[in-house]
Amino acid sequence: MSHEKNFRRVMEGVHEAHDGMKPLPRKKFKKPDTGNLDIETIARGVQSGSRLYLGKAITLLESSNPEHKQNGQELLNQLLPFTGDSLRIGITGVPGAGKSTFIETFGEMLTSLGHRVAVLAIDPSSSLTGGSILGDKTRMEELARNPNAFIRPSPTAGTLGGVHKKTRETMLLCEAAGYDIILVETVGVGQSETLVRGMVDMFLLLVLTGAGDELQGMKKGILELADAIVVHKADGDNVRLAKRTVAEYKQMLHFLQPATESWTTRPIAASSVESTGIPGVWEMIQEFEIAVKNSGFWKRRRQEQTKDWFRSMITDELHSRFFDDVNRRQLVTVLEKQVLSDELTVAQAIVRLFE
Amino acid sequence: MSHEKNFRRVMEGVHEAHDGMKPLPRKKFKKPDTGNLDIETIARGVQSGSRLYLGKAITLLESSNPEHKQNGQELLNQLLPFTGDSLRIGITGVPGAGKSTFIETFGEMLTSLGHRVAVLAIDPSSSLTGGSILGDKTRMEELARNPNAFIRPSPTAGTLGGVHKKTRETMLLCEAAGYDIILVETVGVGQSETLVRGMVDMFLLLVLTGAGDELQGMKKGILELADAIVVHKADGDNVRLAKRTVAEYKQMLHFLQPATESWTTRPIAASSVESTGIPGVWEMIQEFEIAVKNSGFWKRRRQEQTKDWFRSMITDELHSRFFDDVNRRQLVTVLEKQVLSDELTVAQAIVRLFE
Repeated sequence: MSHEKNFRRVMEGVHEAHDGMKPLPRKKFKKPDTGNLDIETIARGVQSGSRLYLGKAITLLESSNPEHKQNGQELLNQLLPFTGDSLRIGITGVPGAGKSTFIETFGEMLTSLGHRVAVLAIDPSSSLTGGSILGDKTRMEELARNPNAFIRPSPTAGTLGGVHKKTRETMLLCEAAGYDIILVETVGVGQSETLVRGMVDMFLLLVLTGAGDELQGMKKGILELADAIVVHKADGDNVRLAKRTVAEYKQMLHFLQPATESWTTRPIAASSVESTGIPGVWEMIQEFEIAVKNSGFWKRRRQEQTKDWFRSMITDELHSRFFDDVNRRQLVTVLEKQVLSDELTVAQAIVRLFE
Repeated sequence: MSHEKNFRRVMEGVHEAHDGMKPLPRKKFKKPDTGNLDIETIARGVQSGSRLYLGKAITLLESSNPEHKQNGQELLNQLLPFTGDSLRIGITGVPGAGKSTFIETFGEMLTSLGHRVAVLAIDPSSSLTGGSILGDKTRMEELARNPNAFIRPSPTAGTLGGVHKKTRETMLLCEAAGYDIILVETVGVGQSETLVRGMVDMFLLLVLTGAGDELQGMKKGILELADAIVVHKADGDNVRLAKRTVAEYKQMLHFLQPATESWTTRPIAASSVESTGIPGVWEMIQEFEIAVKNSGFWKRRRQEQTKDWFRSMITDELHSRFFDDVNRRQLVTVLEKQVLSDELTVAQAIVRLFE
């Protein structure tokens, strides 16, 4: 209860509470020519905590221009010693679960406590649904204006693997820029959740009240990726229902394997509109951090994640080199048809493809 | 109830009840020299329903001798038009769930009803645990002697992808040999369940009574692969507990997405020792087949499975070609270490690996 009060108090004073790191003057760098900025300057700018330089650095990494790309990689390499020192949190939920509102309220609270928060979004499906998660400018308006927050939508182009790679690299840059909490947002219906789980320390699943129905729209196995289930919009008439939903999830979680060694996945009710339960979520996250760091699993998971990332990048590279050739891509299509119509065995198709 | 009775009756007379397809005389072919048998002879032998020829054909496919391997592929191609006409059932469960006993009882029942049953086992972990699923000769003794059953352990050597490929191809050969029910067995703790799910029409999960505890030892997400959960060893003192476990699973399944479109995953109690519930499992499988065939999902899933198989084989081939070079394998190890100790970014390691 005192948490809630404290939270409301800090929320009101939030815009005075940042840690003094000022972005570089906007006008001067409004459209800086990346070609003219040397890597050292950008690296220094990123480390100074400048959102503008951070943005430039990310743009370099995402660029399709080979020179820019290479500069981006060199930059990342220079900054690598200053990465890794953040709490990486994945946040997912079905559309309508209120992810943006949650991130906005949660992010404001974190900055009010002195943290610097970066929000990254992965949304490879945006080309299908017609809009990126963060494409809508009206979303997270408050947080976007907060000088201790940095919001970056996902690159909308490219393969899932590519988007994944860029999000990981962006995460590292944000860490070098002094962001100590990284929130990676993803929609809870696609393939990106497993990827996000593979790059964060903790994974939150946002759901609405009424567990059973809610889960129908969600991806299989997503419950088992989560370290915490936030029953969101637990406000007004929903409060009682939310309590019941928390109980339902508690029961259900009993049957599932927890996502993280040394931690039992926990359901918790919260409202971003009434700002209730949000400090409780943060408390739980801190509890999680202590428990998992103490057990040694924290470090082990990060090492495993890096290994997996390296391996999946090898596969990606092998694929993109192989399919670089348009004739080969066409051949695969033809062979696939023959396999599906039982004219060829899969093994034979493979032989033809590689001969 | 009349089912149970009928089942017990047919079980007793099971060895007289096969469909007249006799294996070729054993002595004559005890150790046939594959080199001397031409592909046409083996193909005819397989199609005649001979277990001996089927075994030879599988050995060819599994051989590491390039000539034998190629013969195996030619053979498979000749037989391809005669494949696909079976019910493919995956069966998994934790060690101790009684998979072998279940398969033996279930298999005997199926053959007694006029079916021909092939049992394949995938156990890529056998090299670690020191014994293949079917390595123990005393297991499935009865079924192994049944002329309408064919039991084949998995190849124990090779990658998961390789084992997968061979099991798929073996499945096709069994179909060409007239086996109309293929049971693919896998242990419920490894990575092979997803692979098996990707090659069967229906997936059974065998569990013991006491849902919560039981699931602790199981792979994450395995419940969501299953079309039916068989609460096994529902006999003696366990009967009441099994009923409760079925109810628990029913409740839990309400929260999970079913594995198959147009089918609701169902828990069912069974005992292989007392042969109770086994005909019920078969009834349910037939219900499943009708529902899923009617909805069109059956065919769609098979096409998707073939596509996925083709794609994963492309990836496998790319990997094995790339890592064929011992220097490259060593380089990967070195680079991985550098990545893990933060000396290199993953992107840089990839550049070095491919330059």
